[in-house]
Amino acid sequence: MKSIQAATYSISFQDKGYNELSNLIESNEYSSLFILVDENTLEHCYPKFIENLETTKSIEIIKIRSGEIHKNLETCISVWNSITKLGGDRKSLLITLGGGVITDLGGFVASCFKRGIDFVNIPTTLLSMVDASVGGKTGVDLGVLKNQIGLFANPEMVLIDTDYLTTVTEREIKSGIAEIIKYGLTYDVKLFNKIKQDKNNNINDLIFKSIDIKNKVVQQDPKEQNIRKILNFGHTLGHAIESFYLESEDKNNLTHGEAIAVGMVCESYLSCKLLGFSFEKVNEVKEVILSIYDKVHLSKEDFPGIMELLKHDKKNVNGQVNFVLLNDYEDYQLDCKVSNELITESMEFFNI
Amino acid sequence: MKSIQAATYSISFQDKGYNELSNLIESNEYSSLFILVDENTLEHCYPKFIENLETTKSIEIIKIRSGEIHKNLETCISVWNSITKLGGDRKSLLITLGGGVITDLGGFVASCFKRGIDFVNIPTTLLSMVDASVGGKTGVDLGVLKNQIGLFANPEMVLIDTDYLTTVTEREIKSGIAEIIKYGLTYDVKLFNKIKQDKNNNINDLIFKSIDIKNKVVQQDPKEQNIRKILNFGHTLGHAIESFYLESEDKNNLTHGEAIAVGMVCESYLSCKLLGFSFEKVNEVKEVILSIYDKVHLSKEDFPGIMELLKHDKKNVNGQVNFVLLNDYEDYQLDCKVSNELITESMEFFNI
Repeated sequence: MKSIQAATYSISFQDKGYNELSNLIESNEYSSLFILVDENTLEHCYPKFIENLETTKSIEIIKIRSGEIHKNLETCISVWNSITKLGGDRKSLLITLGGGVITDLGGFVASCFKRGIDFVNIPTTLLSMVDASVGGKTGVDLGVLKNQIGLFANPEMVLIDTDYLTTVTEREIKSGIAEIIKYGLTYDVKLFNKIKQDKNNNINDLIFKSIDIKNKVVQQDPKEQNIRKILNFGHTLGHAIESFYLESEDKNNLTHGEAIAVGMVCESYLSCKLLGFSFEKVNEVKEVILSIYDKVHLSKEDFPGIMELLKHDKKNVNGQVNFVLLNDYEDYQLDCKVSNELITESMEFFNI
Repeated sequence: MKSIQAATYSISFQDKGYNELSNLIESNEYSSLFILVDENTLEHCYPKFIENLETTKSIEIIKIRSGEIHKNLETCISVWNSITKLGGDRKSLLITLGGGVITDLGGFVASCFKRGIDFVNIPTTLLSMVDASVGGKTGVDLGVLKNQIGLFANPEMVLIDTDYLTTVTEREIKSGIAEIIKYGLTYDVKLFNKIKQDKNNNINDLIFKSIDIKNKVVQQDPKEQNIRKILNFGHTLGHAIESFYLESEDKNNLTHGEAIAVGMVCESYLSCKLLGFSFEKVNEVKEVILSIYDKVHLSKEDFPGIMELLKHDKKNVNGQVNFVLLNDYEDYQLDCKVSNELITESMEFFNI
């Protein structure tokens, strides 16, 4: 596959990616190399990575515990302390090898260490390949509030090796599919139709197309002042639901994709109620999503807690929740205000 | 005094500064205003600040404890939690009112909250007026390692009101004088001569000249790739000495200025030994500094601990400490390597 050129870096695939990374390391004369992994990617991905990388330099492994619950500042502090103890300096390179937690947190850690060192993202889950590793958003959660602390910072390159997908569960693959559906609904309905019509798509094609869309959107609006907000479709309610499940001790956590899949159905419903999005299309979105994900039941008792978390959505201004909704497929409207009653109604619609 | 124009913001003085801040607040329609203070600036500076600001908007006060020891990520987390609880969003403004700890930490907190909100610096100490509040460096310490975590981020404006200097101790004023001496030695010897010849300079003139120099240097090299490194003169050893005193339980802490004053004497000595800086000038620097600061005695037993901390200087690459030294006044050399023996010798020279 050919590389995709982002603003200041390239996204390169398979063998070509390893070649570019090897060249990057040689040409920059980094003083030291660090790789951030969790226990899973250390066991299942690191061996392949190290076999494919050509460098005479040694790489220090820094391991954190897997899971969204560790995507916080305490983990950052422990990584910063590790890099410090291992002699990291401004000319060090940090490679992130993992899912969205690793690439988001690693990018943030690198960008703040001694006011910024280079980093390279190697996503190993579908979700981080099509979303987290591209576009320059880095960050960590504050309590249950997702990505509340972070900044925009671009990696030196992104290396996509889809072989790593053999190391993750089907549930994790599905988590990434939700973002691909989002690109389809908001930007290119052909992508949505592909998923609708055939569950056995060539995953490499879906990944390439998704990254290409995300890159195009981000290049138009890197700091999310306008069009980039479409990438939040389904995420406003989705994030609140994801956070709510994360903080509820009696509930199993949802994956990011499971939560935003629910969010996309609800926000399609809002789009129908407030804009020109047809009810047929709402049902089409719901049908495709329920054909992929186990049905989540949103308990009425949980609605107030979810609404409370909506108050912290990063797009909010003056306490007003701002949704991105759809006039039609590929046709969005930013900064839509929605009443609490209608938000509740949309969650009830999901439950039906 | 006329305003000084930095890359993306202005540095404005006295009444004009308050007018500009009031205008900034009105024209940006911020959703909420926060002011970061410590117990001292809340008591001694906030009343004057609030009297001079013209706005109908309410301002939420966020107080942290004063002192370098609180310039860490734990304090950041508590401030981020406060802003979150108080409903801060991407259109909030954070005003920092205090010394270097407040302006450095506040700038970092603002730059990472929801991937960045606006901030305004109002320095209340001489040190933060002539150094910390200008130039876009933000950050906090990691353990005793100064400013190990941070990033480059510019405020929307800097407001300098020299009346706040009546609220700080003479020792704190002297801490700022060290930075003014640094500007003199590295960039404009007239400024050094002023301090040498007359202890009763008009402080407003010294402040204006210092900020003007810092701004010129930073505009040439915002990310400290080359000439900006001259602002680290005296800081390589100075930071290590400051950190060492901070972590030593049996020692009283040095102010930043006291530590870099020692650093400048030592690094002048290194400049003489390695470059063309004359021994007369080394003695002149030492004399001026000893006429201002109480003599610090660097114990030989402490040298290894100080040398150990030098390893973490942010300018280091490949474990090699990089000094900025002087060929002459106003004539610098970057990235000078110095043997451990000579560093030790420079500290012995200071003790004589």
